[in-house]
Amino acid sequence: MSAARLSSRVGTVRIVGTGLLGTSIGLALSHLGVDVVLANRSPAALRLAIDYGAGRAAADGDTPGLVIVAVSPDSTADHVAAELEAHPTALVTDVASVKAGILADLQARGADVARYLGSHPMAGRERGGAMAARADIFLGRPWVIAPHAGSTPDQERILEDLALDLGSTPIRLDPVEHDRGVALVSHVPQVVASLLAARLLDGGSAAPALAGQGVRDTTRIAASDPELWIQILGANAAPIAEILGAFRDELDGVLQALEAPTAPGAPTRLAAMLTRGNQGVARIPGKHGSDARYASLVVQVADEPGELARLLTEIGEEGVNMEDLRLEHSPGAQIGFAEIAVLPEAVATLSAALEARGWQLAGGAS
Amino acid sequence: MSAARLSSRVGTVRIVGTGLLGTSIGLALSHLGVDVVLANRSPAALRLAIDYGAGRAAADGDTPGLVIVAVSPDSTADHVAAELEAHPTALVTDVASVKAGILADLQARGADVARYLGSHPMAGRERGGAMAARADIFLGRPWVIAPHAGSTPDQERILEDLALDLGSTPIRLDPVEHDRGVALVSHVPQVVASLLAARLLDGGSAAPALAGQGVRDTTRIAASDPELWIQILGANAAPIAEILGAFRDELDGVLQALEAPTAPGAPTRLAAMLTRGNQGVARIPGKHGSDARYASLVVQVADEPGELARLLTEIGEEGVNMEDLRLEHSPGAQIGFAEIAVLPEAVATLSAALEARGWQLAGGAS
Repeated sequence: MSAARLSSRVGTVRIVGTGLLGTSIGLALSHLGVDVVLANRSPAALRLAIDYGAGRAAADGDTPGLVIVAVSPDSTADHVAAELEAHPTALVTDVASVKAGILADLQARGADVARYLGSHPMAGRERGGAMAARADIFLGRPWVIAPHAGSTPDQERILEDLALDLGSTPIRLDPVEHDRGVALVSHVPQVVASLLAARLLDGGSAAPALAGQGVRDTTRIAASDPELWIQILGANAAPIAEILGAFRDELDGVLQALEAPTAPGAPTRLAAMLTRGNQGVARIPGKHGSDARYASLVVQVADEPGELARLLTEIGEEGVNMEDLRLEHSPGAQIGFAEIAVLPEAVATLSAALEARGWQLAGGAS
Repeated sequence: MSAARLSSRVGTVRIVGTGLLGTSIGLALSHLGVDVVLANRSPAALRLAIDYGAGRAAADGDTPGLVIVAVSPDSTADHVAAELEAHPTALVTDVASVKAGILADLQARGADVARYLGSHPMAGRERGGAMAARADIFLGRPWVIAPHAGSTPDQERILEDLALDLGSTPIRLDPVEHDRGVALVSHVPQVVASLLAARLLDGGSAAPALAGQGVRDTTRIAASDPELWIQILGANAAPIAEILGAFRDELDGVLQALEAPTAPGAPTRLAAMLTRGNQGVARIPGKHGSDARYASLVVQVADEPGELARLLTEIGEEGVNMEDLRLEHSPGAQIGFAEIAVLPEAVATLSAALEARGWQLAGGAS
């Protein structure tokens, strides 16, 4: 276990709130040897986090250098204000998924925001609570640090060390820019997926049988927890509404074109929408199916234990590095398809090698 | 190679159009020993399909029992009408992705629709053309047969045999129901994904760095070919517009709620939208990440050749059948996460076994 960068800067770290994020941060920092004290209004929840090894119970006389408020978005400002008062020399941060509103709230109530610097680790799990906590949920995830006019580079470095200690990638973003960013890549996709999935409710019983990978992918996150999302949507309403408004305006143009699809200009309008979609998706970095840097081939895999493992083992034996993998099932069929992304120069050799080994290469989804 | 069910019913099959679908059908039927004759206006394209083994060149004196028109959607009705005239005893079908308009067109021009029965094999590949053709692209896919008032059960059985011969699952759907179904599960998701991805164009440069799996999944199909999609959207404009109109109306309600998120009724409206999304996505059958029948665990996998294969092999050694697999990468990180769906009763044992083998179980995406 490497020593924490953070320790030398802040000494004791106090974590307020022992849900999923608070407990996970406590576990990770404790593993690194940081002195972590935990606080929670519920003694039972606090006990659970301590038993998990996330830290010790807070006590009078603690002098934390850093306080991390990890409570629900709508009570974050209250707790940050209270911590700023209770620990007059500590830097106070929070981990809420929305940033500008909390800062404005603190400023409005005259809190000492010169010692507040908000952050947002973009990690989570489908289940919440201390029992779902793990030290490694931050690994490889972005951790946004949101400086404001009153915060300092030294404070930023403390949170940067916190993020790095936990394996995250720190990203500095202005609170307003952050809120617009998460609206764009997380909150708006959630609303759009929910609205799209809701259409399946008035589609009669025949349509779902025609469902392919496209509708599965576009609606997957519609299965998210409504209770959590009402809170997130409410807390970031303005940026979400702005982006959804632009979505609606472009949708209105598409609807107009679809009402008279052969009218002059209609095909051009549809083409522009589709092309803008191409350009937008190309902005998303990193590995994924549509990544232009990779070529893909589709292999038929029998729906039997061990078949996919055998395929991947044989790809490894051919010395080819698989860049991405997407599975696709045909409901009711005893067969699946594995779409394998590799460097373009490897496609021909790998295809030939797999066919020689008896694999069937197949067409992808429509 | 098993004998084709189709042969005994129709004798020679004539395929008009040797693009991806026509050539693939020809390949599959030829493999099964069916006498296939091919027609294409371009002699070079025809030659290519014949060289591929999709059939022989059409000649005077052919007496096909079944004609399959496999041309672009907007020239399908023309070709079907011509084939009905040229082959006065044959059943004529087509494979276009939209059905009601073609039937109406044929009826309007007084074609002998008593010998026309439309169909739609829901298969395709990202690349088109004869060179992308494969006999197995229909395997496990739905193949819609669209009976109308003038078609007969015997004709349906012929197309059912065609679908079964090619490994597809035949589904009978009224043409209007079909068009509404594909609008719902394919065309509307395409428009919504394109409009959503287009938002990334006005999001500034910071947002894409925050992108997680949610926005990747919801926008993946926005990478589709605009040229093909203009044609599909134009040919099925009315059902698409109807569903998108309902989407827009519900979106307007969400926008209203977001403009005053604390007003009475606003949270309820957001909750209703999210809950309807939950219910809609639950209608999609079959295996996928959010399938309620399975539980999932997330395993950390180093981004090195062979690691994923080793994981899957070891899961197999534990005697557990993996129901689904989803990979997730963190851009820039040397680590990925494999989300593995298994039967709920297998989760505890498998988690323990994998941890004992040294795998790190981790949290999923937020």
